[in-house]
Amino acid sequence: MTPEQERYVTDARVARLATTDGQGCPHIVPICYVYDSGFFYTAVDLKPKTAAAHNLKRIRNIMENPEVALLVDRYDEDWSELSYVLVRGRAYLISDTATRLRAIYALRDKYSQYAELLEDSAKVITLEPDTVVNWAAS
Amino acid sequence: MTPEQERYVTDARVARLATTDGQGCPHIVPICYVYDSGFFYTAVDLKPKTAAAHNLKRIRNIMENPEVALLVDRYDEDWSELSYVLVRGRAYLISDTATRLRAIYALRDKYSQYAELLEDSAKVITLEPDTVVNWAAS
Repeated sequence: MTPEQERYVTDARVARLATTDGQGCPHIVPICYVYDSGFFYTAVDLKPKTAAAHNLKRIRNIMENPEVALLVDRYDEDWSELSYVLVRGRAYLISDTATRLRAIYALRDKYSQYAELLEDSAKVITLEPDTVVNWAAS
Repeated sequence: MTPEQERYVTDARVARLATTDGQGCPHIVPICYVYDSGFFYTAVDLKPKTAAAHNLKRIRNIMENPEVALLVDRYDEDWSELSYVLVRGRAYLISDTATRLRAIYALRDKYSQYAELLEDSAKVITLEPDTVVNWAAS
């Protein structure tokens, strides 16, 4: 990641995470995340979910296929302002407690909303970028 | 699609399209689109691209694997306002000229920016929804 790419993904508040199941069917969800020293972290938080944490499609997909894509983009009606950073890489659930808690603290730092919506016991997904592409309309 | 889901996707100005290549690696791009009578349409327009139209990753992926996911979502710092509609289905390039042109006219109607950035000869991708899930935080 270049310094500009790092700034872009650090400043953004939301991204979209694409995962694919073992049959090659893609899935996308909007995610809150932090970027830290080359890795992205996103937690299974307490926002309402369509399924229980252990059964979330994003988690099941990552177990079946760790290859993911993460898109951070800016939409504007002035299309000369359009831009994105597209990250592809591998994602996995963090098992190490210290690493997991460090990500949770960083998420609470970035999002004040997490004071109430993120538990210390939350599952955390990390994404290690493999390729990063950035694009801007102008 | 329910009437509410139809309103939601009709009102939105941008969506994110996830495709997957033959090796199961996902890809995402932000797209402008129209929704009409059960189908989504998005064109390969004249915004700058990272590759020539015939070689765009989204097109190559759809040729290898028509299963796609389309996410229309609203982010807000008030997380009780968060919502999305997630559409999964099959996408393909439109070959019929009349259908393709009808989509192009609809895209120009929705986006005034397309007066200059969408040619009559543009390739158009259509997505036929298979499953639709909507979610809202409250």
